[in-house]
Amino acid sequence: MKKFSIVGKHVPRNDARAKATGTAVYTDDIKLPGMLHGRILRSPLAHARIVSIDTSKAAALPGVKCVITGQDIPKVKYGNWRLFPDTQDEYALAVDKVRFIGDEVAAVAAVDLDIAEEALSLIDVEYVELPGVFDVDASIKEGAPVLHDYCPTNISVNRKIHYGDVEKAFAESDYVREDIFTVHAVSHAYLEPCSSIAQCDLDGRITLWTSTQVPYIIQCLLASTLEMRENDVRIIKPFVGGGFGGKMELRTWEFCSAFMAKKTGKPVKFTLSREEEFLAGRRRHPMKLYSKVGFKKDGTITGKDFRVHLDGGAYNAMGPTATFLCGNFGAMLYRYPSYSFQGEHIYTNKPPASAMRGFGAPQAIFATETQMSIAAEELGMDPIELRIKNAQVSGDKIPGVATISTCGFIEALEKVAQMSDWKEKRANPKEGRGIGIGCYSFISGGAFNWFNTQYPYSAAEVRVFDDGTAHLLTMAADIGQGCDTAVKQILAESLGLKMEDIRITSADTAMTPQADLGAWGSRLTLFNGNAVLNAAEKIKAKLFGAVSARFNLNVIHEFECKDGKVYPKGRPDRGLTFGEAVGLVQKANRGEPLIAHGYYTPRDKGLVTPAFSFGAQVAEVEVDKKTGIVDVKKFWTAHDCGTVINPRAAEGQLEGSIQMGLGYALSEQFIMDGGKTLNTNFLDYKMPNAMDMPPSEVVHIETYEPEGPMGAKEAGEGLAIPTAPAIAEAVFSATGYRCRDLPITPEKILNAIEPRERPKSAVK
Amino acid sequence: MKKFSIVGKHVPRNDARAKATGTAVYTDDIKLPGMLHGRILRSPLAHARIVSIDTSKAAALPGVKCVITGQDIPKVKYGNWRLFPDTQDEYALAVDKVRFIGDEVAAVAAVDLDIAEEALSLIDVEYVELPGVFDVDASIKEGAPVLHDYCPTNISVNRKIHYGDVEKAFAESDYVREDIFTVHAVSHAYLEPCSSIAQCDLDGRITLWTSTQVPYIIQCLLASTLEMRENDVRIIKPFVGGGFGGKMELRTWEFCSAFMAKKTGKPVKFTLSREEEFLAGRRRHPMKLYSKVGFKKDGTITGKDFRVHLDGGAYNAMGPTATFLCGNFGAMLYRYPSYSFQGEHIYTNKPPASAMRGFGAPQAIFATETQMSIAAEELGMDPIELRIKNAQVSGDKIPGVATISTCGFIEALEKVAQMSDWKEKRANPKEGRGIGIGCYSFISGGAFNWFNTQYPYSAAEVRVFDDGTAHLLTMAADIGQGCDTAVKQILAESLGLKMEDIRITSADTAMTPQADLGAWGSRLTLFNGNAVLNAAEKIKAKLFGAVSARFNLNVIHEFECKDGKVYPKGRPDRGLTFGEAVGLVQKANRGEPLIAHGYYTPRDKGLVTPAFSFGAQVAEVEVDKKTGIVDVKKFWTAHDCGTVINPRAAEGQLEGSIQMGLGYALSEQFIMDGGKTLNTNFLDYKMPNAMDMPPSEVVHIETYEPEGPMGAKEAGEGLAIPTAPAIAEAVFSATGYRCRDLPITPEKILNAIEPRERPKSAVK
Repeated sequence: MKKFSIVGKHVPRNDARAKATGTAVYTDDIKLPGMLHGRILRSPLAHARIVSIDTSKAAALPGVKCVITGQDIPKVKYGNWRLFPDTQDEYALAVDKVRFIGDEVAAVAAVDLDIAEEALSLIDVEYVELPGVFDVDASIKEGAPVLHDYCPTNISVNRKIHYGDVEKAFAESDYVREDIFTVHAVSHAYLEPCSSIAQCDLDGRITLWTSTQVPYIIQCLLASTLEMRENDVRIIKPFVGGGFGGKMELRTWEFCSAFMAKKTGKPVKFTLSREEEFLAGRRRHPMKLYSKVGFKKDGTITGKDFRVHLDGGAYNAMGPTATFLCGNFGAMLYRYPSYSFQGEHIYTNKPPASAMRGFGAPQAIFATETQMSIAAEELGMDPIELRIKNAQVSGDKIPGVATISTCGFIEALEKVAQMSDWKEKRANPKEGRGIGIGCYSFISGGAFNWFNTQYPYSAAEVRVFDDGTAHLLTMAADIGQGCDTAVKQILAESLGLKMEDIRITSADTAMTPQADLGAWGSRLTLFNGNAVLNAAEKIKAKLFGAVSARFNLNVIHEFECKDGKVYPKGRPDRGLTFGEAVGLVQKANRGEPLIAHGYYTPRDKGLVTPAFSFGAQVAEVEVDKKTGIVDVKKFWTAHDCGTVINPRAAEGQLEGSIQMGLGYALSEQFIMDGGKTLNTNFLDYKMPNAMDMPPSEVVHIETYEPEGPMGAKEAGEGLAIPTAPAIAEAVFSATGYRCRDLPITPEKILNAIEPRERPKSAVK
Repeated sequence: MKKFSIVGKHVPRNDARAKATGTAVYTDDIKLPGMLHGRILRSPLAHARIVSIDTSKAAALPGVKCVITGQDIPKVKYGNWRLFPDTQDEYALAVDKVRFIGDEVAAVAAVDLDIAEEALSLIDVEYVELPGVFDVDASIKEGAPVLHDYCPTNISVNRKIHYGDVEKAFAESDYVREDIFTVHAVSHAYLEPCSSIAQCDLDGRITLWTSTQVPYIIQCLLASTLEMRENDVRIIKPFVGGGFGGKMELRTWEFCSAFMAKKTGKPVKFTLSREEEFLAGRRRHPMKLYSKVGFKKDGTITGKDFRVHLDGGAYNAMGPTATFLCGNFGAMLYRYPSYSFQGEHIYTNKPPASAMRGFGAPQAIFATETQMSIAAEELGMDPIELRIKNAQVSGDKIPGVATISTCGFIEALEKVAQMSDWKEKRANPKEGRGIGIGCYSFISGGAFNWFNTQYPYSAAEVRVFDDGTAHLLTMAADIGQGCDTAVKQILAESLGLKMEDIRITSADTAMTPQADLGAWGSRLTLFNGNAVLNAAEKIKAKLFGAVSARFNLNVIHEFECKDGKVYPKGRPDRGLTFGEAVGLVQKANRGEPLIAHGYYTPRDKGLVTPAFSFGAQVAEVEVDKKTGIVDVKKFWTAHDCGTVINPRAAEGQLEGSIQMGLGYALSEQFIMDGGKTLNTNFLDYKMPNAMDMPPSEVVHIETYEPEGPMGAKEAGEGLAIPTAPAIAEAVFSATGYRCRDLPITPEKILNAIEPRERPKSAVK
């Protein structure tokens, strides 16, 4: 393992002080002179044709400055899958139909929020209600209501993967396991609701401050929907209070604030209420997963057939990527000599599902892991042994999809078994207690160019100065995950500087270098880190040359930048300070500042990702058999994220992941009445809070990923995957209740363990 | 002359709409959360030793957050002449002595301005008054009070130029003319008083928004006085309401806002009152000029001896440059076969004089021009003929100083004579009317690196995009003179784009490329324009290569960028749109954006400037012999500023220059009582306003300056020079009163024409 000075250290986060002192400026904190406040009118119906909209009363209300409907805006559909324009199915405001309760119908901008709210109530919309469809089975039935004219089947995306001969594999298997799993929608529940504020300058250019994960994508899509040129639109990301996949698409309020700012000449701000976020916000895809896996007697897997119906809600959103990734994640973790996947993304009259931490993996891997545990049980094997037997290892190839470079999966399995005292606890179970395992693999950023960008995937500009400082510019979006800190560490390590020597400017599309695809798919440490390293290497080449010339050194010398100095390797006494070396390069270039641009695009890395993380988690639970309440006693996690850039940040990711996994497994769900979300606040939507967090132990299985910057891979999303299957397996071992339909509610446990004694629950 | 599409056109200024609509944000318009308001305590004495300062009562006043004196700050002297640290003679707050009435003694930051003002009155300063000295003659006398210990002579800068044998020249002359001239101080009187606001971020970095001409200089000097690293300081120039040389140094309020922001953790704003500006603000140097010129009978000049005492006030400020330039300007306009100059910059107990539009030239050339007119009179020659006889021409060399490349001086003299009907009006003078001529030459930016910058003098970054737009980034400061517009025109012309295709970001030291020395010496059109062109050439080389490869063209083809297209010269049908060509380059670079940096530093251009402007102006006046009031009837100007980039902007410069020249000649002066400025408001300081402006006609004598961007030279300062001598000569021809001591007041005229009938004026 390489020795690092700053990488691998508990460096305080770049944003820590601003957040701790309350001086961090989020989008809603921005106040511009003359600013108007916007509100959105949403559909009360799940499926309806719009006959007419009368905005005259609203427009006449004193203080209202602008009212718009789908009739007032350019008829440009958008969606993140620009490479396949067919998938772009959304208008900023409904043009002819509404397709879910909460669908955006009109927008108002007024001098204050109360007036804007009152104006909404004065807009008359005449609808003709249409029959709706609320689950995937109903939606794909012959004669089901059709949501989009272009898509009479309601199946908007279809993804297939096949390799090996699955049928033959099953025929030759000793044991074939077949299950159907269903997983539910959960909310990102980021603490900062969506917010955006737009200003139109006197040349007609738009600046939009917005709470987003993807400034560049918003720039492009906003320009296209406004029918403007990309570079006449500038996106600035202020501090962001979480995204988790929920802020990676152009959204109605972003368009409306810009469009209305252009129309009124005044800044326009929209900030969503928590109720709107829960009622109509993006959410994790509910899925129905059909999984069939063949085994030999000794536990060796022969093949897998995996079919998934994604409940996409009313629009595609990031559904195409989820469909795509679902198939990939179905092929991960274990060696499947043959594999057949079919994923279908299906429209329903519900709020669109989209990307959410894990992006298809929490669902696919819940099925994989639960099924592995069932199989182990039936094969009479230890679940961890069965996993080790089939575990993917470094160099494994998934035909047509990916090659796994580094893989610490087996070590993680062994380590987590040891940490959790797995064998002992399995051998001598305590009454009401159970222990279970869940595993994961995740991508370190996406390789497939669905956005059809013309730019490198990540970019960085590094300027260095003779005062010993550096300025790092990148369009990458720190949304609280800490990427500003990570890339500063990488740059500091590479140039031998301290954290405080580096100024960072990020996520401003007009000022930072083109481009960065955004914060999703756990891509930024690897992608942006590589771009930063690429720039740093160019800087170092110049510095090394200058020092070499200054001391007239033999050309075979290698150099290093360390502790603020630049010197021939092994001879720290012989060299210059970083600032002196920069000054020398500058002098040699007759004063020109020393600047370098770095880029990274994964090439020849398949369609999925350049690097996979792996890990395993054990949960121990105690189940109260009278109430059905699950109490998670502890988590043990061993994970391979390559080089850990910032251990404290990685542990923060683990904490957050466990919190999300806990909610996904046990308490969070949208209570729906047809297309209507009933629990639209934090009292009724039961997200675990800090007090609910069980203790946790973690071991980093460090590998050195050759494609990652200083050996790093992802640590931000994968960890959100294993918690639900680990809890489900632990609940099974405590109670005998085997969950195939998340979440694991007390009702389900009680119904399973004492089915005849209890009335049937009214809650689904 | 080359044909241009956008250069040479009446393009609206970049800042016009924002200023016309009132949306332009000046420094004082910026309001930051928690902002404190600063005020400065100034010395009531012209010269005194500070015995003690008690700030305890002020600090105890509720609402006061910070009080500082010279004892609280790092003892770092500053000044713009970093190359000669001896000239750096100023502390941000007086440390031991005060040296003029208005010298900065302490500063207060409070929650509002009233409290800050009240706090000033609570600061007790104990002074020991010292004898003061208020003019150059007194200051250099043996035994005069000494202002700075390091400088017992009170002469802080001494500049000598000698070439040829002046004594021999005088000996061989038929006629030797010797005069003493005195010129007075005037105010820049920019409409926006100085203002700055600083914020210290949680990493300790400073951002300072300030009304300045020189962001980069402020960055460096502020960092040095705060004992910080240069790049931990960021300077942003908002809209600026005029500078004219008065905003090109680090000033007390800039330091104090930054220092106090660091100390309090809150933003601190200082905005000067008009009274402070007049009482203690920088001003044009008063000078005493001794000029001796030898002539042959036919008017041929044989030599010149020129000695100048600059009244610098209490600190050097930009006095070293004024001293330096004064000697250079003394050698301009006419061919002096021999020349001897001695300039001395002398301390007095008055507000420091500094740079002001013309920078040494209005004073030196008032002497030159008045003396030429006197000589013409005495030699019996027409003043214009005498000038033409001796006029400098293209290729003239001033030994050791400069080579004049382009020079339209003789054409300007001929043209202005014709425009003004000079011969006819001289031959047949009307009663009370007179006509006079004044000429000028000026630099197009300074070549001498007195700031000792390590960077190129000007820099530009140009980013181009496949949507057909460009983004120009430059640290150059538009202070109302229009340089943002000029360089946008130059870039648009070079790349064949429209003005609206170009976004410009300027004057932000953290975001725009290092460096630019600022807006002074009429440098930006030539210097920054050249940097922009240099970047544009690099962009074009790539575009041309891409088009050549795309169409497989013969390597001998030249290309052009015009009308949004890139094509082989003469074949506009065969090429690509600008955006397509950019996209092609980008594709060839695997997505990397097309960015270029351009730089300009004058090399091998002597110590003065790469290019000189020239011009001549005729004024016609009517003098009321009863009141002595001068009514200027009209100005005719013919000037050579090379290619006129923006005719309307150039005319705006002429209008502004005439307004300043008119005030300098006739109405503006500081009324001083010892060291005290008595007229500290616009009622008592008589600056001509729009209603006072005479009609004016102008002809541009276009030359094509090879060192200038698209042939351009300066047009911003030179025009401020000829007005005073032209009026003085016209007044002489109307009244017989020959002015050798500006301004030309009614008293002086009346005293001259009816000396015995009038009481002696009480006003100097």
